[in-house]
Amino acid sequence: MARFVRKNKDEIGRAPDELFYRGEKKIDEVLIRVIDFDSKNLNEQPVKDITEAIAYQDMKTVTWLNIDGLHNKELMLDIAKGFHLDELVLANVMNTSSRPTVQEFDNCIFLSIKMLQLNEEHGTLTVENLSLILTKSVLISFQEKKGDVFEPIRERIRKNRKRIRNGWTDYLTFALLDIVIDNYIYILSVLGEKIEILEENIGNHPNKSTIRKINDYKRELNFLRRNIRPAKEMILTLSKLESEFIFDSTYIHFQELRDNMNQAIDSSDSYREILTDQLNLYHTSVSTKLNDIMKFLTIFSVIFIPLTFIAGIYGTNFDNVPELHYQYSYYIMWAAMIFVAILMLIYFKKRNWF
Amino acid sequence: MARFVRKNKDEIGRAPDELFYRGEKKIDEVLIRVIDFDSKNLNEQPVKDITEAIAYQDMKTVTWLNIDGLHNKELMLDIAKGFHLDELVLANVMNTSSRPTVQEFDNCIFLSIKMLQLNEEHGTLTVENLSLILTKSVLISFQEKKGDVFEPIRERIRKNRKRIRNGWTDYLTFALLDIVIDNYIYILSVLGEKIEILEENIGNHPNKSTIRKINDYKRELNFLRRNIRPAKEMILTLSKLESEFIFDSTYIHFQELRDNMNQAIDSSDSYREILTDQLNLYHTSVSTKLNDIMKFLTIFSVIFIPLTFIAGIYGTNFDNVPELHYQYSYYIMWAAMIFVAILMLIYFKKRNWF
Amino acid sequence: MARFVRKNKDEIGRAPDELFYRGEKKIDEVLIRVIDFDSKNLNEQPVKDITEAIAYQDMKTVTWLNIDGLHNKELMLDIAKGFHLDELVLANVMNTSSRPTVQEFDNCIFLSIKMLQLNEEHGTLTVENLSLILTKSVLISFQEKKGDVFEPIRERIRKNRKRIRNGWTDYLTFALLDIVIDNYIYILSVLGEKIEILEENIGNHPNKSTIRKINDYKRELNFLRRNIRPAKEMILTLSKLESEFIFDSTYIHFQELRDNMNQAIDSSDSYREILTDQLNLYHTSVSTKLNDIMKFLTIFSVIFIPLTFIAGIYGTNFDNVPELHYQYSYYIMWAAMIFVAILMLIYFKKRNWF
Amino acid sequence: MARFVRKNKDEIGRAPDELFYRGEKKIDEVLIRVIDFDSKNLNEQPVKDITEAIAYQDMKTVTWLNIDGLHNKELMLDIAKGFHLDELVLANVMNTSSRPTVQEFDNCIFLSIKMLQLNEEHGTLTVENLSLILTKSVLISFQEKKGDVFEPIRERIRKNRKRIRNGWTDYLTFALLDIVIDNYIYILSVLGEKIEILEENIGNHPNKSTIRKINDYKRELNFLRRNIRPAKEMILTLSKLESEFIFDSTYIHFQELRDNMNQAIDSSDSYREILTDQLNLYHTSVSTKLNDIMKFLTIFSVIFIPLTFIAGIYGTNFDNVPELHYQYSYYIMWAAMIFVAILMLIYFKKRNWF
Amino acid sequence: MARFVRKNKDEIGRAPDELFYRGEKKIDEVLIRVIDFDSKNLNEQPVKDITEAIAYQDMKTVTWLNIDGLHNKELMLDIAKGFHLDELVLANVMNTSSRPTVQEFDNCIFLSIKMLQLNEEHGTLTVENLSLILTKSVLISFQEKKGDVFEPIRERIRKNRKRIRNGWTDYLTFALLDIVIDNYIYILSVLGEKIEILEENIGNHPNKSTIRKINDYKRELNFLRRNIRPAKEMILTLSKLESEFIFDSTYIHFQELRDNMNQAIDSSDSYREILTDQLNLYHTSVSTKLNDIMKFLTIFSVIFIPLTFIAGIYGTNFDNVPELHYQYSYYIMWAAMIFVAILMLIYFKKRNWF
Repeated sequence: MARFVRKNKDEIGRAPDELFYRGEKKIDEVLIRVIDFDSKNLNEQPVKDITEAIAYQDMKTVTWLNIDGLHNKELMLDIAKGFHLDELVLANVMNTSSRPTVQEFDNCIFLSIKMLQLNEEHGTLTVENLSLILTKSVLISFQEKKGDVFEPIRERIRKNRKRIRNGWTDYLTFALLDIVIDNYIYILSVLGEKIEILEENIGNHPNKSTIRKINDYKRELNFLRRNIRPAKEMILTLSKLESEFIFDSTYIHFQELRDNMNQAIDSSDSYREILTDQLNLYHTSVSTKLNDIMKFLTIFSVIFIPLTFIAGIYGTNFDNVPELHYQYSYYIMWAAMIFVAILMLIYFKKRNWF
Repeated sequence: MARFVRKNKDEIGRAPDELFYRGEKKIDEVLIRVIDFDSKNLNEQPVKDITEAIAYQDMKTVTWLNIDGLHNKELMLDIAKGFHLDELVLANVMNTSSRPTVQEFDNCIFLSIKMLQLNEEHGTLTVENLSLILTKSVLISFQEKKGDVFEPIRERIRKNRKRIRNGWTDYLTFALLDIVIDNYIYILSVLGEKIEILEENIGNHPNKSTIRKINDYKRELNFLRRNIRPAKEMILTLSKLESEFIFDSTYIHFQELRDNMNQAIDSSDSYREILTDQLNLYHTSVSTKLNDIMKFLTIFSVIFIPLTFIAGIYGTNFDNVPELHYQYSYYIMWAAMIFVAILMLIYFKKRNWF
Repeated sequence: MARFVRKNKDEIGRAPDELFYRGEKKIDEVLIRVIDFDSKNLNEQPVKDITEAIAYQDMKTVTWLNIDGLHNKELMLDIAKGFHLDELVLANVMNTSSRPTVQEFDNCIFLSIKMLQLNEEHGTLTVENLSLILTKSVLISFQEKKGDVFEPIRERIRKNRKRIRNGWTDYLTFALLDIVIDNYIYILSVLGEKIEILEENIGNHPNKSTIRKINDYKRELNFLRRNIRPAKEMILTLSKLESEFIFDSTYIHFQELRDNMNQAIDSSDSYREILTDQLNLYHTSVSTKLNDIMKFLTIFSVIFIPLTFIAGIYGTNFDNVPELHYQYSYYIMWAAMIFVAILMLIYFKKRNWF
Repeated sequence: MARFVRKNKDEIGRAPDELFYRGEKKIDEVLIRVIDFDSKNLNEQPVKDITEAIAYQDMKTVTWLNIDGLHNKELMLDIAKGFHLDELVLANVMNTSSRPTVQEFDNCIFLSIKMLQLNEEHGTLTVENLSLILTKSVLISFQEKKGDVFEPIRERIRKNRKRIRNGWTDYLTFALLDIVIDNYIYILSVLGEKIEILEENIGNHPNKSTIRKINDYKRELNFLRRNIRPAKEMILTLSKLESEFIFDSTYIHFQELRDNMNQAIDSSDSYREILTDQLNLYHTSVSTKLNDIMKFLTIFSVIFIPLTFIAGIYGTNFDNVPELHYQYSYYIMWAAMIFVAILMLIYFKKRNWF
Repeated sequence: MARFVRKNKDEIGRAPDELFYRGEKKIDEVLIRVIDFDSKNLNEQPVKDITEAIAYQDMKTVTWLNIDGLHNKELMLDIAKGFHLDELVLANVMNTSSRPTVQEFDNCIFLSIKMLQLNEEHGTLTVENLSLILTKSVLISFQEKKGDVFEPIRERIRKNRKRIRNGWTDYLTFALLDIVIDNYIYILSVLGEKIEILEENIGNHPNKSTIRKINDYKRELNFLRRNIRPAKEMILTLSKLESEFIFDSTYIHFQELRDNMNQAIDSSDSYREILTDQLNLYHTSVSTKLNDIMKFLTIFSVIFIPLTFIAGIYGTNFDNVPELHYQYSYYIMWAAMIFVAILMLIYFKKRNWF
């Protein structure tokens, strides 16, 4: 899981349209799926060869071409040729380390966004780059590896939900991005629940696992924020984009995306704030506890100091120490000691020191 | 009380116009209230069936339809059909976890905002989503549960107050939002008074209840801020909205909403600042007190150290310690000890150590 | 002195145009003063009844109507009627807890700003809401209580200063606001001088009065900032306002107001910065001093520890301790002790510990 | 050296166009210098009376009138009359405590900026207000006292440098402001060098002079920032000003001013950051050193504690303590003590405590 | 390596178009390289004299003139004359301490940006100013010293890559800037890897080399940020520039530059955040460790205090201490001591103090 954009020395100076896949190959064979539909007809079938998919390309129906796996350079070239796209667009698709962006080309819009997924079993997060190429009647989506994250949309298409079946590629784009952002919010929710559980323990029993958890959650949250924040700009740009490929009726949906995105950012900001407060609270608790211990121990020691001094006085070997020879001296010494100790305790108590 | 937006796994990928109520059912039966008025006539009556309410829908009078309870999906569909609204609008109404927003549709404006209410008996805050659908002559308001928060407006309508009886749905919208924002300011006032009371105690007697209170207020304030801040954007958008449903004369009122909103944000920022200052002051007080104790105890100990040493010297068993055998040695030792102790006290005093 | 906006429960839901004075009644009787002038004539006289003032209302001369005291609801209604103003404007005037604002109405501009005044004898600050209603030929200014803060302007009018006698109500508005902002800067100057005096003492003799002063000044500055900052926005809006009541030649003066306002904000930001630095410096001084004391005491104690140990050794009652029986043992012990002490002192000195 | 804008009580309420010099009189007699030039001719001569200078005022040549000393009110009035300027402009010139600003008047542009100068001998900074009045053919510059800061420009004019001799008053304005900003950068450079020298010492030998220097530099930097930052806005406004007095070809130079200004701000931001880091580093060093001392002393004390206890045991006077009577008990005690001490040292070492 | 912009006293007041090279002379002889190409022809050859290069200047082919070394004033004048450029442009080229900027001139665009390069052997960073002068058919690039950083572009030209061979000077400009920004990201990557390696050690074994590394990385990162941030503005300005020299098709590439730039800034912000977290974590670790040690030592001491006191009691020389004379007193004392010690340990354990 690459946490930040990385550049190797040999990548400097490549042409922007050079088809070069810098990521790791996460899937063996490229998987091509096509759904072609309009309000009445639906055509969904596995596709072996990209030429089959290109054949769907016409103005009457919406074609959603989903491609899992980006390492096949020839396929990319075929797509570029088949759909009359600039090679630069496909080079962007293969550059999985790019920042979420919207780019308008002559005959298509290119979108890319980070897709976050939580593996609930292992509690690990995976980041994947999702690229979308949007033309009038074709939407090509590229994922780094096989995934069923967009299955709910396929279901909605299959179940003949009106809005999606009547919509064009722009509405389909919205539906895909909506799932991506819903996943952001879902992942934030899961993290948020863990943070709130932590909150209840923090004031009472602070221990080293508390601080480790806070730091872990902070790191996790920062990781999320780094991936989510740039998407906000991208969604904002999209919601303001004027393009022949986007119908007026779709803007209300893009606005919804923007609202959801803002909500995700708001949440992450709040969690960040809470974690900072928790950290401060933890430090306060720890230092209060330490101070209490030290104060107790110091007061304990201080009470014995004059007592030990008195004992020391009567341990001296002077020839003439009158007190040593009275019969009840020893008991008087004890009494004096207890009296001094009680006096000190009263004084400390009165000054509210413990 | 859901503190942040939450997403469950199974909510990801739903269609945006799916009528799905994700909140808890806070009321058993949906309550429908209608007030229909113009400057001369007033018609207020309980309504059993939504079709009665739909009947009021005409261009001559203002109809305010208030619906408490959002869980009834059929009702929502009836409303959509009856008032010719896009189902998406009603889906938004049912999505109570959304961010405050203003959305323009073809034949209506949709507004949503968080409504905060303080239960003064228990000191608890409840958050509720208020949705408004604004058409030329109908204003539909949706609350999650039955409430009398808008009673003052009904009173103003009943009492034939000119401005509200002459106004249209836009003025009614203003009146409703005004109450919501007044409640924000009221709740902030109540919290603010508690914070100011705290301030007077903080320097003098800092104790654990002080720090607990500061942290509680901080958490409460953050909760308020999280709910209020997004409303600011929504109010700003509203005050700039150009729509056929909003008359020019109403903008001065929307501007007032904006000013009040800014005042609420200003207050919350100030309280936040004050709490931070209080926290710092508390820590300073606590550490000053601890330092004073430690300094006292250390000085106390240090004074006994040379005394105990002197006693130790004359507790040795050397055959030849001349001092041991003078008659007044013991008294001289005492004198020396007192002299040393006083010397040390003078030195410490002179260096301003206590 | 209300520090923040407050809302009582029963104020929620009032109509925006309800004439309701929420402040305390600071003056018994409302005081009305009128100055009517053009470049040639001047008419200044006490006015008992508002109808006398309304009579001045014509297009040829400038009429400045100053009203001290806001609690008289009937008077407000008379003014509204007499000058043909919307009741909403007068309701705004009576709402003294509002945020500084500029509102354009059909036949007037409404301005409100916080007026700060320093009572130099008691060192207390008072806040008052100043409202201005500006029409073509009439400027009505409302103060909460009687004050002579605008006397210099009356003087300039009386002394026939050209610019003010030739100007219209817009120039008069500038002159009034200029005095308000000059007072901001003056009050900041007075606070600033106290802060700079503090600065000289802070490094040398930090004591509890220092920290109390810093916290007092900080609180005072925050109070000023809370009142001044919102005025900045109001002045900015004013300096950009396009209205028939404001002549082009007056904009250069509004720009000056804006510059002065920015200067006030700059100053307050700088003082804030300085106070934060002083607080840090104070804490550094205090902790440095404490550390020095603790280090001294610890080193003092540590030097006695091995000496007391040596004395302890020779206080044991073993039958066979050869050293006890040599003649000079006792003196040798003393020598050894002094030697050890000096060695330790040299070591500590060499390591730069004191 | 006035650090912030100050307002005295009696300055409140003055008319904006009242010619009132609030600064201290820094020069006895006002000094007037005129340079009149076009691409071919140059006329430079001392001027006794302002009327001589006014005579140069025509459209064919550029006249640069430099006036040192602002306290002469009559002179200001003569200038206003002679060059047909609004008295407000001259009042602005005399108000040396104003914020850097650009103001467009009907027949002139007024600029003011703070001029900083470093007296390298004494290491002191002086601040002076520079005012410029720019008309088509005349540039009047006002300084508070005599200075040779603009001598390089006079040199460039004398040496017949093409760009300045062909330029108009706008280019001359640029040249003057360029020197002012170059001085900002120079003063920042000098401070910056001192800061970087400090950096090398900070980690190794932190002492009280280090912290004093950091605080001094911080204060100096804050002072610079307070004077430089407002100039940025002024330069930005100037670079966007559309005026008949500014030729298109001069904008590229104003843009350069803006770049230089940004560079100055960038530098000052960086130095601020560095000083904050240095302060943190200093505190870390000091506390690390203190902790090391305390740890050493504590470990030292702790080692003696069980030893002194053992000695105490055998100093008891019980009748029956068998160990006291063995022949080698005393030596065994010594051995036991050394053994315990070594054990403790090993334990502490192993736990990496020193 | 100059860390900040510097101004010497004698540089103040120079004319903006004075050709003055303020940097150090980093190369002995100026090196001139020319590549002239269109889609079909390529002409690359070393050039001795600038006049040869000027000869290439025509409208049909793209000429890339690369000049290494800026100290030759005559050469600059020849270039200005040969390509009909304003001398100001060349003065800008020679001013290597300027801020990254884009300036439009009548017949050219001037760009400057900082070029960062990492010497991987020594781990040192070098900063160099890159200036570009862009006309319709000629791109002149100026570097301070000979470098092969642009070799990949020459390769792409030689290898007849379509996009670069068909492109004009604007595309070439993009290609050069792309390499500069790729280098930013690469250098950040290298630093980032070091930071991440550090992260793994920080919680476990904090030591002085950790803190030194954090501070070193922080300083390095601040240095990078200072050089990269201003470039962002420059790239943004470029991507919005409307000029006859920039074709529409190139904007998509400039947008890519902007995205990359934002990515670099994002990364640097994230690393900054991580370093701050690491610093806090380090301080927490160190203080936790210190607290643990101190707590241990204090508890250890405190346990011995009552024991030593007991021993002291029985070291007194009173005539009548009954306990001294029982046979098993000594053993009872031992038992009592052990009992007290265990009691204290249990108490401390129970209160969770160690």
